[in-house]
Amino acid sequence: MKILVTGATGFIGRYVINELKNYDCEIVATARRTENLPEHLIDNGISYIPCDISEDRTDFFNYLSKPDILIHLAWDGLPNYKGLFHYETNLPVHYNFLKKMIQGGLRHLVVAGTCFEYGMQSGCLSETLSTEPANPYGLAKDVLRKFLEQLACEHPFVFQWVRLFYMYGEGQSKTSLLSQLDKAIDNGDEVFNMSGGEQIRDYLPVEKVARIIVKISLQNKINGIVNCCSGKPVTIRKLVEDHVRNTGEKINLNLGYYPYPDYEPFAFWGDNSKLRTVS
Amino acid sequence: MKILVTGATGFIGRYVINELKNYDCEIVATARRTENLPEHLIDNGISYIPCDISEDRTDFFNYLSKPDILIHLAWDGLPNYKGLFHYETNLPVHYNFLKKMIQGGLRHLVVAGTCFEYGMQSGCLSETLSTEPANPYGLAKDVLRKFLEQLACEHPFVFQWVRLFYMYGEGQSKTSLLSQLDKAIDNGDEVFNMSGGEQIRDYLPVEKVARIIVKISLQNKINGIVNCCSGKPVTIRKLVEDHVRNTGEKINLNLGYYPYPDYEPFAFWGDNSKLRTVS
Repeated sequence: MKILVTGATGFIGRYVINELKNYDCEIVATARRTENLPEHLIDNGISYIPCDISEDRTDFFNYLSKPDILIHLAWDGLPNYKGLFHYETNLPVHYNFLKKMIQGGLRHLVVAGTCFEYGMQSGCLSETLSTEPANPYGLAKDVLRKFLEQLACEHPFVFQWVRLFYMYGEGQSKTSLLSQLDKAIDNGDEVFNMSGGEQIRDYLPVEKVARIIVKISLQNKINGIVNCCSGKPVTIRKLVEDHVRNTGEKINLNLGYYPYPDYEPFAFWGDNSKLRTVS
Repeated sequence: MKILVTGATGFIGRYVINELKNYDCEIVATARRTENLPEHLIDNGISYIPCDISEDRTDFFNYLSKPDILIHLAWDGLPNYKGLFHYETNLPVHYNFLKKMIQGGLRHLVVAGTCFEYGMQSGCLSETLSTEPANPYGLAKDVLRKFLEQLACEHPFVFQWVRLFYMYGEGQSKTSLLSQLDKAIDNGDEVFNMSGGEQIRDYLPVEKVARIIVKISLQNKINGIVNCCSGKPVTIRKLVEDHVRNTGEKINLNLGYYPYPDYEPFAFWGDNSKLRTVS
């Protein structure tokens, strides 16, 4: 069984690669450049193939060594959710790449979706809900999925859309909440400025997200969209307080310093009943 | 007031042009080729500008004589609703063209949408309903609208999306139901083969559709999506029987000869309350 991972050098990708090592499979990964890979990515068990998916080549599938499964995690430009490039540039590039892979012979495609596909909907969100993306990133991912669903009517393939919610872990974007909290603690800051913290989200550690992605891909019991989430609503305030407690350090939270973001609903989390059928 | 109409040589476009003549405005129309225009399109009151919107030019707005309003009716490949070209080819072409128009200086854009954006939803469909397009044509139109909505956040413009339901009239596609009925009557056929006819739709004469499009564009009272529909559900059988009665001819309906199409819900019609605020 040969598994190709795109976005393998990204935050989630590295954990997915690590998780795949627990299974009896051949791991192939793409990277824009394969010379000068960071130390922690170099691993004898993994073949890196240099690949820019925005190139207009027709032989992607053969070039990427004919994988049995593609776990497609690549996506440029995050965490800027509002740039039009998400649908103007990324969307056609990713659709074209994935279509070429399918046309080349790929039979099983796993793609990372996002809870931003749900848009400004509140409460417990299930996969059967209509999506209503409200920013260009969520829109581009939502549309990519719909394009692929239509493509699957013409060229059938196993299609699993793993809709990611929030996550945290080592290596995360420096602009993320917990990365900034860690930095403040490391700096010995007395105060951490944050929003009111009352908003409700759904968080998983990235190691768990990687386990879920790999399990879904290899078990192949679930089709279509599956929420990758805890199913447990948590306030941002509690998330932060727990994180501080786990570090054993002290820092005062300056709640209400930042306004609540306008591109997310105040309270939402994922329905994980479909996910529980595999995990 | 200068009005540009794309798709002016198409079924609806011709009626829109005719309707615009009742108003005090300058009419400009695009056509792929302006030499050898059909007789019935040649009119001293209209300037035709040769234009292929799939060209990658940045000066569309100036080239198309800086209109105050664009009524965008062009769309290739109908009535094939299932071709992937709707979103693979048409969508990027139309989005690119419209974005260039906006960037060039267009302040007011009116685009023809489709009831196929609603997908397989039944009953009385209102503009506030989430769209769930189920074929590539409906998907491409739905996504074009969402792209333009995001674009309007960055480059504000008046955006009116006239969601068309079913229509009939002289010059319609030869594959449409009433065109085929007319042909059968003209041929002196004794029998007209059709589906069971029990499905429910929402039909308007194309002249009325054109009046609505022009009124919405020129009154400029409505923003966003507006259903262009009668609001009156009618069975296909009654539509056909009424049409036969109007011709004064006789033909027997062979109901149930064709299966019901799989790409449309059995019974749906438009909520026209928003439309009634202008007409």
